[in-house]
Amino acid sequence: MLTMPIPEYLHEILDDVRDTTSGELADYIPELKSADPNPLAVALCTVNGHIYSAGDDDIEFTMQSISKPFAYALALQECGFDEVSASVALEPSGEAFNELSLDGENRPMNPMINAGAIAINQLINGSDSTVEDRVEKIRHYFSELAGRELTIDRVLAESELAGADRNLSIAHMLRNYGVIEDEAHDAVLSYTLQCAIKVTTRDLAVMTATLAAGGTHPITGKKLLDARVCRLTLSVMASAGMYDEAGQWLSTVGIPAKSGVAGGLIGILPGQLGIATFSPRLNPKGNSVRGVKIFKQLSDDMGLHLMSTEQVSGHAVRSITRDGDTTFIQMQGAMNFSASESFLHAIVEHNFEGTEVVLDLTRVLSFHPVAIRMIKEGLKRIRDAGFEVFILDPDDVLPDFMFSDGTICKERV
Amino acid sequence: MLTMPIPEYLHEILDDVRDTTSGELADYIPELKSADPNPLAVALCTVNGHIYSAGDDDIEFTMQSISKPFAYALALQECGFDEVSASVALEPSGEAFNELSLDGENRPMNPMINAGAIAINQLINGSDSTVEDRVEKIRHYFSELAGRELTIDRVLAESELAGADRNLSIAHMLRNYGVIEDEAHDAVLSYTLQCAIKVTTRDLAVMTATLAAGGTHPITGKKLLDARVCRLTLSVMASAGMYDEAGQWLSTVGIPAKSGVAGGLIGILPGQLGIATFSPRLNPKGNSVRGVKIFKQLSDDMGLHLMSTEQVSGHAVRSITRDGDTTFIQMQGAMNFSASESFLHAIVEHNFEGTEVVLDLTRVLSFHPVAIRMIKEGLKRIRDAGFEVFILDPDDVLPDFMFSDGTICKERV
Amino acid sequence: MLTMPIPEYLHEILDDVRDTTSGELADYIPELKSADPNPLAVALCTVNGHIYSAGDDDIEFTMQSISKPFAYALALQECGFDEVSASVALEPSGEAFNELSLDGENRPMNPMINAGAIAINQLINGSDSTVEDRVEKIRHYFSELAGRELTIDRVLAESELAGADRNLSIAHMLRNYGVIEDEAHDAVLSYTLQCAIKVTTRDLAVMTATLAAGGTHPITGKKLLDARVCRLTLSVMASAGMYDEAGQWLSTVGIPAKSGVAGGLIGILPGQLGIATFSPRLNPKGNSVRGVKIFKQLSDDMGLHLMSTEQVSGHAVRSITRDGDTTFIQMQGAMNFSASESFLHAIVEHNFEGTEVVLDLTRVLSFHPVAIRMIKEGLKRIRDAGFEVFILDPDDVLPDFMFSDGTICKERV
Amino acid sequence: MLTMPIPEYLHEILDDVRDTTSGELADYIPELKSADPNPLAVALCTVNGHIYSAGDDDIEFTMQSISKPFAYALALQECGFDEVSASVALEPSGEAFNELSLDGENRPMNPMINAGAIAINQLINGSDSTVEDRVEKIRHYFSELAGRELTIDRVLAESELAGADRNLSIAHMLRNYGVIEDEAHDAVLSYTLQCAIKVTTRDLAVMTATLAAGGTHPITGKKLLDARVCRLTLSVMASAGMYDEAGQWLSTVGIPAKSGVAGGLIGILPGQLGIATFSPRLNPKGNSVRGVKIFKQLSDDMGLHLMSTEQVSGHAVRSITRDGDTTFIQMQGAMNFSASESFLHAIVEHNFEGTEVVLDLTRVLSFHPVAIRMIKEGLKRIRDAGFEVFILDPDDVLPDFMFSDGTICKERV
Repeated sequence: MLTMPIPEYLHEILDDVRDTTSGELADYIPELKSADPNPLAVALCTVNGHIYSAGDDDIEFTMQSISKPFAYALALQECGFDEVSASVALEPSGEAFNELSLDGENRPMNPMINAGAIAINQLINGSDSTVEDRVEKIRHYFSELAGRELTIDRVLAESELAGADRNLSIAHMLRNYGVIEDEAHDAVLSYTLQCAIKVTTRDLAVMTATLAAGGTHPITGKKLLDARVCRLTLSVMASAGMYDEAGQWLSTVGIPAKSGVAGGLIGILPGQLGIATFSPRLNPKGNSVRGVKIFKQLSDDMGLHLMSTEQVSGHAVRSITRDGDTTFIQMQGAMNFSASESFLHAIVEHNFEGTEVVLDLTRVLSFHPVAIRMIKEGLKRIRDAGFEVFILDPDDVLPDFMFSDGTICKERV
Repeated sequence: MLTMPIPEYLHEILDDVRDTTSGELADYIPELKSADPNPLAVALCTVNGHIYSAGDDDIEFTMQSISKPFAYALALQECGFDEVSASVALEPSGEAFNELSLDGENRPMNPMINAGAIAINQLINGSDSTVEDRVEKIRHYFSELAGRELTIDRVLAESELAGADRNLSIAHMLRNYGVIEDEAHDAVLSYTLQCAIKVTTRDLAVMTATLAAGGTHPITGKKLLDARVCRLTLSVMASAGMYDEAGQWLSTVGIPAKSGVAGGLIGILPGQLGIATFSPRLNPKGNSVRGVKIFKQLSDDMGLHLMSTEQVSGHAVRSITRDGDTTFIQMQGAMNFSASESFLHAIVEHNFEGTEVVLDLTRVLSFHPVAIRMIKEGLKRIRDAGFEVFILDPDDVLPDFMFSDGTICKERV
Repeated sequence: MLTMPIPEYLHEILDDVRDTTSGELADYIPELKSADPNPLAVALCTVNGHIYSAGDDDIEFTMQSISKPFAYALALQECGFDEVSASVALEPSGEAFNELSLDGENRPMNPMINAGAIAINQLINGSDSTVEDRVEKIRHYFSELAGRELTIDRVLAESELAGADRNLSIAHMLRNYGVIEDEAHDAVLSYTLQCAIKVTTRDLAVMTATLAAGGTHPITGKKLLDARVCRLTLSVMASAGMYDEAGQWLSTVGIPAKSGVAGGLIGILPGQLGIATFSPRLNPKGNSVRGVKIFKQLSDDMGLHLMSTEQVSGHAVRSITRDGDTTFIQMQGAMNFSASESFLHAIVEHNFEGTEVVLDLTRVLSFHPVAIRMIKEGLKRIRDAGFEVFILDPDDVLPDFMFSDGTICKERV
Repeated sequence: MLTMPIPEYLHEILDDVRDTTSGELADYIPELKSADPNPLAVALCTVNGHIYSAGDDDIEFTMQSISKPFAYALALQECGFDEVSASVALEPSGEAFNELSLDGENRPMNPMINAGAIAINQLINGSDSTVEDRVEKIRHYFSELAGRELTIDRVLAESELAGADRNLSIAHMLRNYGVIEDEAHDAVLSYTLQCAIKVTTRDLAVMTATLAAGGTHPITGKKLLDARVCRLTLSVMASAGMYDEAGQWLSTVGIPAKSGVAGGLIGILPGQLGIATFSPRLNPKGNSVRGVKIFKQLSDDMGLHLMSTEQVSGHAVRSITRDGDTTFIQMQGAMNFSASESFLHAIVEHNFEGTEVVLDLTRVLSFHPVAIRMIKEGLKRIRDAGFEVFILDPDDVLPDFMFSDGTICKERV
């Protein structure tokens, strides 16, 4: 029986950072201040649902600000982009403690700061929802993302509420500007309970993998979010997730991310995987010290930078060959804009002879909608040039065989 | 002879926006104010060097702020990240006209605003370079990126210098804080000449494609920049390229971009393509009105959003089959972290029998370094489990056949 | 029977501004929005207790922000400058609605903005006071200043509390930073009741005259505040009383002032008089439109500018004459530093002859403490030079007749 | 021969602060950095031209920022308030080094910061003046204020210009916004030469005394400035003279002031005196450490606080007596608004009998214009009530004897 090297690698990373004991526990809630500072965990979950983890990956802690991107996604799914944008802007913002971070229209600057997150929370389940119904809606949805029933740490929430002056200040100002309508106390209660949902590092990896996968749960296969919602959520994590280090983080780590004061940190590579770490000691900016280190190492070692240009697409057109009167065009890889452009480029350059053309999709992995349109347009042009066109698609990667003009293309079997 | 539909599509996009005549010409330089407002062009260049364009794609105009990301890349290439970061920070920043946008350490906030760009310009060719030598270095490098000899509009530069009080103000303040050492006048002269380099929309598409391709020129194949330099340049374009609309742009368009007051606008999809548009009328934020429209449509129609999750990697492991004592593992597509994870996952799950294992790379397009390491580690584990391991690599996509422990793997031919 | 021209003058001023109907009623409280916009009044009260008024000088309205300087004075009187300064800073500050105006130490910028005024209110009657006790303390003290029992408009206060989100936001933030300890709701309740104390324009003139008079009530003669408290209160009105117009107001009107959203406006000339106006329509900065006009005219017509240099002190030394062996030094006017300097200058220049010197205070109006010290020092030097010194003080303006060395000077009757 | 105690008092103050050696010399100009840190001086000059000084009162140093209020006064005198206000605003402003302190209309915030002072300098002698002519105009005017020919330290100015990047930055930005039209270099040269005018502490005391005296030189008696110009200059010193300590300074010292980096510090009490100190070591805010101490002590000891309410006007109406058919009203002191109000109040309350009324001005020191108007109005009403009115004015303090209706009042001799 072979062993999997990825967990070993994750263990190595944990070992590298384990001795780092700098940073401080969050001190504004007694429950956080008295937490065990030592737990350390990392977990990855691919869009295919493979989970790898190391360390204390089953210790539960509260999501805190990590709940923000998931609540934002839920609000977008429920209300749509326009309604959400009317309440909360999308611009980067430091989160200075004695400012409110509202923009010129008195909207919170973005959904990743407290002002924005409180406003987003209020959008969920309708503005006339009770606090309990709204929180249950969120808890239920987060549970679906995690693939298990999550619970709320109500003792911690209670404790947090006792010292929630900053959030109450924000909620009253949001009410003052008409951004929220609910009572300030209820708005903060609702947001605080959202923050107090308990997760493990593995839970977070699974939850983020759903965002990475365009909304399809990597394990249950259930479609939980629209692809556009995921795209918007990742975008705002990229531009505003790491507070006033957003630009530095995007340059050096390159993974859209969000941290929570309980010590969690999540990151997402679109189309690839979700990442989560847990280590409670925080740097002065409120991010987990060891979590940040792990992310930097993962980005460096694994080529997980969003702006990585190294995966230059290979040749989507593997070959164009002729056998008698038949020309075979063999495609390979994932068909996106670039790949379909390669196809079009190749057929325009090619001097077709004979009477028929076969598009061989045997080595094709997937089709982006734009690629379907572009490749069908190319096939139509070949046909219009007088050739009979066939498609060879043994794995059924192409959803239908219509040309761009609606006529049907023949299948080659 | 087939015709290529992409230029037709680009013509359609131009037709859609052609009637939009809102916006104003930049008015602070007579030459810009008196420019023809009507030209309209778009061009794409893939990392493979295929260029598509429509409209007035051969009209020359000055780069202006579009020069910033290329100069930043050149400075990174010459001086390295640490030296560049010592001069210029990486955080998003509005570009309010009556502020200087310096951070707490009196560094310009990022290389995409004038203060940062003037400081970056000074790093090129060494701080003791003459203005002419520095500008020639930049012009020469930009020409290499464009694939033709670019020239400088010295008349326009002269005119711009006559009213360059804002940049002179910035340059003196940078001198005041020791960010630059050169004479303020020379620094502004040098930067203004950089901005006055003339390009066509096609030139810009080719230049950006080099950044998309990790530094390899898409046509000449010449390696002009390190992949890391490209990654950093794209990152800062994403976080700061569109001034105070950065967050909104990243969410809704999702293409790292930069605009210039002469009417140019560029965007880059890492690993895929470079995009450029030209239309001189500007919106109040200083971005080309029609250029912005074209980018939004390209992003929507072509699935070119950076956070797109729709191209979920297909199954990197196409099949595991056994023929007598030999097990064949057939891989497909581009081998990145996700793909190699799929490989490891598959071999760990698989119950190997027989005596030998063949890794079939026939359908593999490319290898990211992390994938090479991970797959070799997997092969070593198979070998250590008692199997003889072979690699079938007819297209030589794997650079060498060493296991992760340095021993040599056999090739199956 | 003669008639007094001052009220006539005040009537003329009111007539001049009566037709000005620009401006809007404050709209954030229904009671203010539905108020009668037409009332117009002006009142002056001298430090000697002479009151002049015109217009609707007996209509009651709520003090609102006009309560701030009086509450500040009360807090200073109760707690001292050091304790008050620990809570609230003294620097000018705009009062942008979506900022909190805290300084680098998280103290409110000054006592004239809401954040500062809420913090000041909490200092009164001790931090463990009930709301009702604190408010009664304030009402009682304001009543003493006004010279009649003032009442609180509790209906308006109730209405204001229903929409007090902005102040609640501020109170929670003050609690967050430890500036106040009371419950946010109670702090805002307490401050709102303070603002809802009802006064007439005449009341305000009398109240401000007490501050002008160094704390002695101009009518009852009761000493209500220390001179230093009055000095500090006037200072902060001068630097921060008119929000972000403070500099412009100080230059062009030159009267320390404070406005309230119910339409009141007060001003103080130290040592001279208190001024109050009432007209409910406000300009965009929240100051009474007609009130501002009246103040400008009063300042221009009556030479009431704080920086007025026109009242150059006359010759404090009226004459030095000799009658036989006796030299008479006749002083005149108010004896301050400048006057006593004149005295010293004169005696040093004078060539005394004979055997005795008489200081004639018959025409002296008053003595500042520094003048007492300086003049006594001068007398001692005359005595030390061998002359017998007498003081002629028929009106007893000099409190005692000791030389600066403690020996007693003789009185000349 | 008597000795004057004021210089002794000043010596005592110097002795008290002499041992304070904290603070640092300004280090941005070699000439300032290498200056002798030890000189210590204080000087007062009354509006009557009496000068008192102690310490190194004849050492020359450059005015630097102390030149700002005098240049502002000159610009006001030459161009008027409206033209000056079009260029420079009047609001308080910190002087953060990496901001430009422009307001929403791109005007410098006030004339006491460098941006404002450079703009003010440009207004003097017309915008088409040569630098040398403008500087000579300023030097000449400053010399008139000082009462001797001042010279410019051109070596120091030269040295300052070599590192004048901050001012050049400001000048270019002012040009950018059209606040100034001259070449940036010339504007900074002109301003730098203004700052390099050399004065002694005694010079400064005399110069400030002119502002205190409403524009009349205390020694030469020459009218150099309008009273209104002085009032505006003092106002802006009060609100913006001490940078971001303006509010604190106004509260605790209460003397409109301005400091210079060469170690000078000036203050003005309107109508009373000018004060100057010199000690080169600066606190972190750029104000002379010992100078600040001296001002605090002078304010405390001498009652020189602008908001002092202690000099409550005495009884302006000394007595009303009747001798047969004649009623004598004896006035005393300086006749300002308050005094004339007392007069009006008294005559209205008084039950006149007999046939004639004599206004006795024998003890009156001076008349403010408003007092002239008000008292004449009162006299007219007495006359209209049927009495014959006479004025007794042996010292000619009243300029003419017309009633408020233009008819002539009789003089009683």
